[in-house]
Amino acid sequence: MPRKSVHKAPFISFEGGEGAGKTTQAQLLKQRIETHQIPVLLVREPGTTPLGEQVRNIIKTSDNVPAADALLFMAARAQLMNDIIVPNIQTGTTVICDRFADSTIAYQGYGGNLNLDRLRHANELATDEIKPDLTVLLDVPPETGLHRRDADDESTGETQRRFEELPLRFHRNVRRGYIEMARREPARWVRIDASKEPREVADDVWRHVAEFFNL
Amino acid sequence: MPRKSVHKAPFISFEGGEGAGKTTQAQLLKQRIETHQIPVLLVREPGTTPLGEQVRNIIKTSDNVPAADALLFMAARAQLMNDIIVPNIQTGTTVICDRFADSTIAYQGYGGNLNLDRLRHANELATDEIKPDLTVLLDVPPETGLHRRDADDESTGETQRRFEELPLRFHRNVRRGYIEMARREPARWVRIDASKEPREVADDVWRHVAEFFNL
Repeated sequence: MPRKSVHKAPFISFEGGEGAGKTTQAQLLKQRIETHQIPVLLVREPGTTPLGEQVRNIIKTSDNVPAADALLFMAARAQLMNDIIVPNIQTGTTVICDRFADSTIAYQGYGGNLNLDRLRHANELATDEIKPDLTVLLDVPPETGLHRRDADDESTGETQRRFEELPLRFHRNVRRGYIEMARREPARWVRIDASKEPREVADDVWRHVAEFFNL
Repeated sequence: MPRKSVHKAPFISFEGGEGAGKTTQAQLLKQRIETHQIPVLLVREPGTTPLGEQVRNIIKTSDNVPAADALLFMAARAQLMNDIIVPNIQTGTTVICDRFADSTIAYQGYGGNLNLDRLRHANELATDEIKPDLTVLLDVPPETGLHRRDADDESTGETQRRFEELPLRFHRNVRRGYIEMARREPARWVRIDASKEPREVADDVWRHVAEFFNL
């Protein structure tokens, strides 16, 4: 059954723990979509807008409470939605997002023990309840991901370093959160075994994405 | 009936529209409490912490969507609660806050038309549901407040300028929001006619605050 975006072009997010290969896979997907002459844009949270870069810088350089981190990410998200994501998917450009709202639920909720309902409602404030058409969970055991992550995830490394340093239990809770979210919303999520070789993972991702473009 | 704080010392917030005299009245109240040798701290949103100052600077210099503004204020609030407000009221220092969570509901909710329930839930994320023991609404018609506000509100003027420039209808909605919130939670709110002379207003405020200290 081919998937269909509720927007003019699909909105696709990549999620997963540290070292799952989100940045690599998001870039590979972008290139693959481009080979079909389909307009596509890759954005990353919390950057891409001036506010997003300010937030990225604050998170990177300060040690604020988890609720403040969550709310800062959401503020950047609200601006990214308004300035970049919504205008593009509404006018026919596919948007790939390297992390989106589910990251906050996984990291600050399941990982950081903030109330999940409050986080969901606050996320709705940021996203106006617009969700990705497809969310790709790149799933690896935290032990694997934390060892693997280095060269190819460098672009997200600065903001993520604070999280990487948290204990293994934190990362296990993040993974459990992602798996629960994927189970609860199977129409939106696909869970992909990201412990495989990047090219194999990319092929798995492509099988799900191709359905949107009838390819 | 004397009021009683649920904390070791009361937490008091000042709310109201532009030019209502919040900064002046918060300072006058602090001085009056100090004359009774009671430890008291005056803080202002979104400043007072490093994150608060960063947020203040972003709001002042950028033009972000209302949801982003709301979430930035809340991020600063989460940090202010954790670092300053909670440690002080728990150890016996009265905290006076020049604007708090209700400002977001009034300005971005009633004024900016963001969903009130989402704002309330997001506020709970920031405050962990800790509310002021007393919230003083300094109530003036927006026409009066907007004309009056200048010299004595200078300290809040920079961040507020963006809001001051919004149409009169915005400020009328903010006032309506405050009045509704005060009616809904009469045990926490007092509404004071702030069109009177500052000294008279200060006396009205003091009558309500004195009950906490059995003065």
